[in-house]
Amino acid sequence: MMNIGIDTMGGDFAPLEALRGIKKYLSENKSGAVQLTLFGDEAVLNEIIAGEDIPTGSIRIVPTTQVIDMQEHPTKALKEKPHSSIATGFQHLAQDKTDAFISAGNTGAMLVGALFNLKTIEGILRPVISSIIPKQGGRTGLILDVGLNADCKPEQLNQFATLGAVYARHILDIEDPKVGLVNVGEEEGKGNLLTQSAYALLKANNTINFIGNIEGRDTFNDKADVMVCDGFTGNIILKLAESIYDISRNEGLENAYLNRFNFEIYGGTPVLGIEKPVIIGHGISKATAFCNMIYVAEKMLQTGVLQKLKEAVQQS
Amino acid sequence: MMNIGIDTMGGDFAPLEALRGIKKYLSENKSGAVQLTLFGDEAVLNEIIAGEDIPTGSIRIVPTTQVIDMQEHPTKALKEKPHSSIATGFQHLAQDKTDAFISAGNTGAMLVGALFNLKTIEGILRPVISSIIPKQGGRTGLILDVGLNADCKPEQLNQFATLGAVYARHILDIEDPKVGLVNVGEEEGKGNLLTQSAYALLKANNTINFIGNIEGRDTFNDKADVMVCDGFTGNIILKLAESIYDISRNEGLENAYLNRFNFEIYGGTPVLGIEKPVIIGHGISKATAFCNMIYVAEKMLQTGVLQKLKEAVQQS
Repeated sequence: MMNIGIDTMGGDFAPLEALRGIKKYLSENKSGAVQLTLFGDEAVLNEIIAGEDIPTGSIRIVPTTQVIDMQEHPTKALKEKPHSSIATGFQHLAQDKTDAFISAGNTGAMLVGALFNLKTIEGILRPVISSIIPKQGGRTGLILDVGLNADCKPEQLNQFATLGAVYARHILDIEDPKVGLVNVGEEEGKGNLLTQSAYALLKANNTINFIGNIEGRDTFNDKADVMVCDGFTGNIILKLAESIYDISRNEGLENAYLNRFNFEIYGGTPVLGIEKPVIIGHGISKATAFCNMIYVAEKMLQTGVLQKLKEAVQQS
Repeated sequence: MMNIGIDTMGGDFAPLEALRGIKKYLSENKSGAVQLTLFGDEAVLNEIIAGEDIPTGSIRIVPTTQVIDMQEHPTKALKEKPHSSIATGFQHLAQDKTDAFISAGNTGAMLVGALFNLKTIEGILRPVISSIIPKQGGRTGLILDVGLNADCKPEQLNQFATLGAVYARHILDIEDPKVGLVNVGEEEGKGNLLTQSAYALLKANNTINFIGNIEGRDTFNDKADVMVCDGFTGNIILKLAESIYDISRNEGLENAYLNRFNFEIYGGTPVLGIEKPVIIGHGISKATAFCNMIYVAEKMLQTGVLQKLKEAVQQS
C-alpha cells in the first residue's frame, strides 16, 4: 500500500480545491493501492468532506494547527511553525509514515523542507526541479532545472540530463527521450562558459540520447524532449512560457495549443534527486491540479523512478 | 549631410528587397539630409535600379565583387573576402566615408567587422546588441544584451542599463524608461551570483530609473521598458519571443498583438557601444525591414545618441 501525504492547507484555493481534487482522484482511480494522508485543520476538513460527500475509506487526517502563508520566509516559517501542515507533512515523510508529499503552498518552504528533511539520492550533486513544457504537435517536453540551482557547474547540467531522461521515460512515457542543451547557438563550441563545458560531458554521457544544442526558438518545437539548463535560465523560460497563457486569455484567443500553456493542468513540479517524491503545485492549483499531483506521486512510486534515477546517475 | 552605407548583398532576399527598401525610404523621407552609399554588384544593382524605377539622386554605388554567405565563418570570411560588401562597407565606415552601416547579411561577420573596424566608445567595457520586444498594451520594450556577451560581469550589466535607457529615450521616444533586471525573483537578493551583484550597481546608478528585478513573466508586460541581462539569457528570450510569431502562423491565429512578434517589422539590431551606428538586420529582411533600418540609422545620427551614450556612461 502506497501512502501519499497531502498538504490540504496550501495554495490560494485551499483547502476546498485540495479536497475536491482528492475526491476527483478517489472517484477515478480504481487501483485501490493508495492511502491518502491529509495534513490540515481537522474540523474544517471534516466539514468539507461531509459537505462534498467525499468517501473516507482511503483517507486519514493528521490534524495540524498552523499554516505557512505564501509570502512567509521559508526557513523561518518552517522553524517557527512546527505544527504547520507543511512541516508536519515532512516529518511524516522523513519518518516513513508516508511515501510521498504534495503541496500547493509556499514553494520556498516546500523546497527547504524537502532538502532538509530528506536525504539526497546517493551520487546526486544537487536536487533539481523540472517542469512540463507543451510542445507543438501534441508532444510534451521537460525542462530542468527551473529554479533550484541558479548557478550551476557543468557536472550538474550533465546530471540534470540523466535525471530528466529517466523521468521523461518512466513518468512522461517518452520512449527514448531526445536530450538538448539549452544554448545560444546550434554548433558545438557555442555558448557561455557553462554550456561550452557541459556540452562535452553530455556528449560523453552514455545513458542519454543527446542531440546537441537547442536554442530559445526550439523551446516549443519537437527538437528535444528534455531541455537541460541552469536554474536561472530555466526559471526565466518557464515563467515566460506561463505568461503565454495569460496573453492568450487577455487577447481572447481560443486555441487548443495555447490552452496547453495553462500550467494548472500539469499538476506540479517534482523535486528530483531526493529519496522520496515531493511535488510542489502552483499556488493557483485547483481540483484538477491536486488530482494530477496525486497521480504523478502514485506513478513515481509505482514505477520506482527514484531507484532508476539512482542507477542511471551511477552509470553516467 | 549624413551618409548611410548599406550592404545590398546581405540577407535572404538581397539585393532586390534591399533596393526596394531603399526606394521605400527615398519615397517617404523628405528630410533630404541623407545620402545612401550602396555596397554591391554594380551591374546587378543598376539593373534593379532601372527596373524598379528608383531615383538615383541620393544614391552612390561602391562596386564590390565578393559576398560573404550567411553560413561562412565570420573572421575567416572577412579576412579572405576583403572585396565583399560587408568588408568594404566597414572600410568606408572606418575611413569616415560613411557615417553608419547597415546589413542583413552574416550576423557574425557584422559583429566581428563592427568590433574590429570601429573604436569602442570611451568608457564602454564591451559593446552590446539589443532588440525590440513587443509589449502588451501597445508599448515597445528593449532587451539587452541579446547575444554579444554570453558571460558578463556585474559592471557590464550596469552599463547595458545605462546604454539601454539612453537608446530607449532618444530612439524609441520613451521619456523616462523604466529599467528592470531580468531575474528569477522579484525581491532584492534573489538571483544567481551575477544578478545579485548587479542589483546593487543598478540601484546606485543615478542615470537610470531602476525599478528592480523583473521575471520571465514580465517580458511582455509593462513593468519595465528596458530589460537588462547577460547575452546568454537575452539571446534565449529573444529567440523564444521570435518563435511566438511562428507559432501564431502555424496555429492560424490572427491577432494584432501576436503580429507584432513579426520581428521583420523592427528592421534590425544596433550594435551599441561603438563610435558609429552599425545595424544588423535579420536574414529574412524584406523591403520594410531595410527601410526601417535606414530610419533607425538616420535617427541615431540625427539625435547624436552615441554622444549621449558616452556622456551617460561617464556619469554612471
